[in-house]
Amino acid sequence: MTVRFSAVHQVAEPEGMPAAEHFAFVTGELPAPTAGTALVENLYLSVDPYMRECMNGVWALDSPLEGRSIGRVIASEDPRLAVGDLVFHRQGWRTHALVTGEEARVLPRHDGVPPSAYLSILGGTGLSAYVALTRIARLEPGDSLYISAAAGGVGTAAGQLARILGAGRLIGSAGSAAKVRHLVEDLGFDAAFDYHDGPVTELLAKAAPDGVDVCLENVGGEHLEAAIDAVRSHGRIVWCGAVSTYNDPGRPPAAPRNLYDVVGKSIRLEGFLVRNYPHLQEEMEERLVPHIRSGALVPDETVADGFGRVVEAFLGMLRGENTGKMIVRLADA
Amino acid sequence: MTVRFSAVHQVAEPEGMPAAEHFAFVTGELPAPTAGTALVENLYLSVDPYMRECMNGVWALDSPLEGRSIGRVIASEDPRLAVGDLVFHRQGWRTHALVTGEEARVLPRHDGVPPSAYLSILGGTGLSAYVALTRIARLEPGDSLYISAAAGGVGTAAGQLARILGAGRLIGSAGSAAKVRHLVEDLGFDAAFDYHDGPVTELLAKAAPDGVDVCLENVGGEHLEAAIDAVRSHGRIVWCGAVSTYNDPGRPPAAPRNLYDVVGKSIRLEGFLVRNYPHLQEEMEERLVPHIRSGALVPDETVADGFGRVVEAFLGMLRGENTGKMIVRLADA
Repeated sequence: MTVRFSAVHQVAEPEGMPAAEHFAFVTGELPAPTAGTALVENLYLSVDPYMRECMNGVWALDSPLEGRSIGRVIASEDPRLAVGDLVFHRQGWRTHALVTGEEARVLPRHDGVPPSAYLSILGGTGLSAYVALTRIARLEPGDSLYISAAAGGVGTAAGQLARILGAGRLIGSAGSAAKVRHLVEDLGFDAAFDYHDGPVTELLAKAAPDGVDVCLENVGGEHLEAAIDAVRSHGRIVWCGAVSTYNDPGRPPAAPRNLYDVVGKSIRLEGFLVRNYPHLQEEMEERLVPHIRSGALVPDETVADGFGRVVEAFLGMLRGENTGKMIVRLADA
Repeated sequence: MTVRFSAVHQVAEPEGMPAAEHFAFVTGELPAPTAGTALVENLYLSVDPYMRECMNGVWALDSPLEGRSIGRVIASEDPRLAVGDLVFHRQGWRTHALVTGEEARVLPRHDGVPPSAYLSILGGTGLSAYVALTRIARLEPGDSLYISAAAGGVGTAAGQLARILGAGRLIGSAGSAAKVRHLVEDLGFDAAFDYHDGPVTELLAKAAPDGVDVCLENVGGEHLEAAIDAVRSHGRIVWCGAVSTYNDPGRPPAAPRNLYDVVGKSIRLEGFLVRNYPHLQEEMEERLVPHIRSGALVPDETVADGFGRVVEAFLGMLRGENTGKMIVRLADA
């Protein structure tokens, strides 16, 4: 059994915002699986902010691209993978993949848990939020929390998770009035603001007049400065990403002018990479699945339909067009 | 018993580097102590970097100034303080003070521990180093450590303490060739450099080609940038002070252009204020006194003789003229 596949390759390195011209759709043919491998038809693909960083020097040009994916096994020569299994693997940006039993993880099926959740609230995005709040911030019940880029994949996961962990006042920033409404009306944030409406520091001070115990910072630059300003003495700032800087890696972001307050306010500013925490995946699933099944936790997803839209979905995500996790759906599970 | 005293007042707020003209020597007369107070003759005064920050808005003009001091009780109406007791209190910048039993702490006398040590290695300076390494960095045996401003009060205390805690490679930066020699030849640093000799990042990379586990950062600006560059993944930067910025509080320091590496390298950058750790004073003394008595820990002090030199000592300390802790000696204990 051979299968014709479509894939996307990166064909040029972008300066600044990437565009469609930096990618090309290619096709090819995958052979039948040999011993220890299985053929997977991809169903859901993840596009993520970190991929923008990969475009400058990490991803090889004209080659297969890495990306978190969920697929269905359609042929298998590996006893660990059975035809029909839903699997998670990292060969994204293509319709089909040959995977080994080591690199593919068979996903459990839970009533009420959509498979796409393994790319959003139960995937790397959810794990980022989980690590940030439980391991880095070590959020305590009652702690107030500010999340920047709160309407994105990590932000919507973190906001909902914070509620489950017993957070106190929950504040978010986002890039549009619609997203602000989504945070307050759908996700239970106590306050939210559109960061285009003025200096972030002032908007945050208005939304959190007493400051906050914890900041989850996803943007960098002026947003980090606002976080340093808002956090109380002995507060924690978890630095998860800096999407404001990804398009211009050669030019450092505007640095927080108040950085020295890290000393005066005894702040702990700590960064982390979710790839160092795969051992928490199982713990996270055990804790979160019951809340997803009860409806307390809702995978917040923007879905683009069709493999042909993967580049468009990626670029839209970089422009902030998604609410929650951006996912490309090739077919239903 | 009344006593004639001399004191120093701040008489003007400096912009930039302070000068003698911002201070005035005044004299007055202290009455005999009344119930619950004692009259103290100051023997040693501390001048510290944090006082530069106090000069802009914290200290009232033409008023008594705060400062760590050691004195001898010469008259007492407080049963907790006996004539002849050596006491630690915070009424510095003067020759005599009226103190209460609450605010003065009677110092223990240990053979081989000079009283001035309670302003240096056993004082706020030593406590800063102790908190930084044991509580914030949580230094483990074998950890490599870089200390900026290593020849100063906190730096020389931290370097020696690190050795006792079992640190691995120990690297320091300082402001002159003589200080660099002092670090390596007298204090057991493995490597040291004069930060005037080139970009700090390059000098540090040469001194610590494999990076370091922990940085104790006392300078700020370009030095913090170098620390971020040198620290390994999952390393810790303890931010203790930013002496490079104290003279220009209105203008933020050059920010680290590599700040986002806090995420990429999973760095913990944490500031603290020693004034939040008075409860560790006793623990520190219990741990350090035996090492002082054995000679493993040497109070590293630059002593200015005579109350008339207190302003000069303070300004000299700000210019980095001291090695180790700058102390003003009024009389011997």
